[in-house]
Amino acid sequence: MPILIVNDDGIYAPGLLTLAEHLREKYEVVIVSPDREQSAVGHAITLAEPLRIYDVNQNGRFFGYAVSGTPADCVKLATRVIMKKPPDLLISGINQGANVGASLIYSGTVSAATEATMLLIPSIAVSLDTHRSDADFKPAAIFARRIAEKVLHTGLPGGVFLNVNVPALPVDSIKGIKITRQATTYFDDFFERRIDPQGRTYYWMSGTMVEVDRGEDSDLMALRQGYVSITPVRYDLTARSFISQLKTWFEE
Amino acid sequence: MPILIVNDDGIYAPGLLTLAEHLREKYEVVIVSPDREQSAVGHAITLAEPLRIYDVNQNGRFFGYAVSGTPADCVKLATRVIMKKPPDLLISGINQGANVGASLIYSGTVSAATEATMLLIPSIAVSLDTHRSDADFKPAAIFARRIAEKVLHTGLPGGVFLNVNVPALPVDSIKGIKITRQATTYFDDFFERRIDPQGRTYYWMSGTMVEVDRGEDSDLMALRQGYVSITPVRYDLTARSFISQLKTWFEE
Repeated sequence: MPILIVNDDGIYAPGLLTLAEHLREKYEVVIVSPDREQSAVGHAITLAEPLRIYDVNQNGRFFGYAVSGTPADCVKLATRVIMKKPPDLLISGINQGANVGASLIYSGTVSAATEATMLLIPSIAVSLDTHRSDADFKPAAIFARRIAEKVLHTGLPGGVFLNVNVPALPVDSIKGIKITRQATTYFDDFFERRIDPQGRTYYWMSGTMVEVDRGEDSDLMALRQGYVSITPVRYDLTARSFISQLKTWFEE
Repeated sequence: MPILIVNDDGIYAPGLLTLAEHLREKYEVVIVSPDREQSAVGHAITLAEPLRIYDVNQNGRFFGYAVSGTPADCVKLATRVIMKKPPDLLISGINQGANVGASLIYSGTVSAATEATMLLIPSIAVSLDTHRSDADFKPAAIFARRIAEKVLHTGLPGGVFLNVNVPALPVDSIKGIKITRQATTYFDDFFERRIDPQGRTYYWMSGTMVEVDRGEDSDLMALRQGYVSITPVRYDLTARSFISQLKTWFEE
């Protein structure tokens, strides 16, 4: 059964193409991807509007399906409409830009893996730590396939997927793989106030990620040290460590 | 310092109005809400487009700020642009429809509380378990204020907020409060295939929530039994229980 590839940078993104080419040497691949960039959409799904599916060719040959929706929509449509059977594995990416720390909350790349995990499909999200337009995605594709082979062979615990980040280095310069946790970070947002040609105010957001901790075991630190980081991610959000204390609040 | 209210049903939603009226009897309140419904947007934020802020009146008096963005955008704009100091508390809601189980992943109501928690603001998400247009939000507003008082008095652990669901019952029929965990559920999605007036295919998604477990301690079960459920939620997604096993994968 095939590997499903989804991303949030859109079906024409170079990271998706490099990943697909490298996987196709060994596996059957199905590509279902947003028809345009869908970064920072979080786990949005499309309920209030219809969705469309388009065939997309590359070099005169069928390449994959473009969807007029979000990464989570792509996973739902792939498994419910496009594919006859669920895939053996989902790989989301390769995203342009790291998904570490607080970025996991906003990331469309990560949300596709979350969605597939809820549907019991083993999943990996893969991101390359650069925004350069001439980025080389091949090292990330090599690591993605290596990790995919391991997941296909060993499986993952229920409710857990792998969030992989690869440094933007030649493959020989990457120091290895580190198993990590999500760094504690937040975005220090800045809203630039501007005036439009009609004299009305608007705001444009930008933000810098601020590190709250500098622990050696975080995804952020692994990348910085030249390692591929793999963080196991769960979608169950319950803060179990606070339950017993919270129970005392309403005892009368 | 005031309480910040955000929601995902839009600034004219009755659940927001009832909550604001009930809180204003005791607290100063600032309302910053999407200018239209933003359900199921997950943790989307707006980076590729500008954002606008509009003053909204109710009965000839200033009521709050409408934002041309998502619930997470509202929290960012409220704390960075609209309010001079961070609020003491954020309440997101009152949402029309429960946010239990897998819904937490898709919910704009929950994402506003996540965003505020990352910004170190104590937060509560509140939802009423009905989609009826004549829903009475007063019982949920009463519980929301009671829980808010407790949070203002006691505080919350870092990185944790409370996700509250209230059954659609008269306040005297509600059996009490249960501290719960997120139920394990998924959506069994169905895509209805239709043809548009131009003869092209489109798909419209709908889904039914499927319960994977029927544990007595879940948010879903508490609601069903007539209790208010309070689930403590964390935004750190690391699956710590899998780290040590995962480390053995790449030892050579």
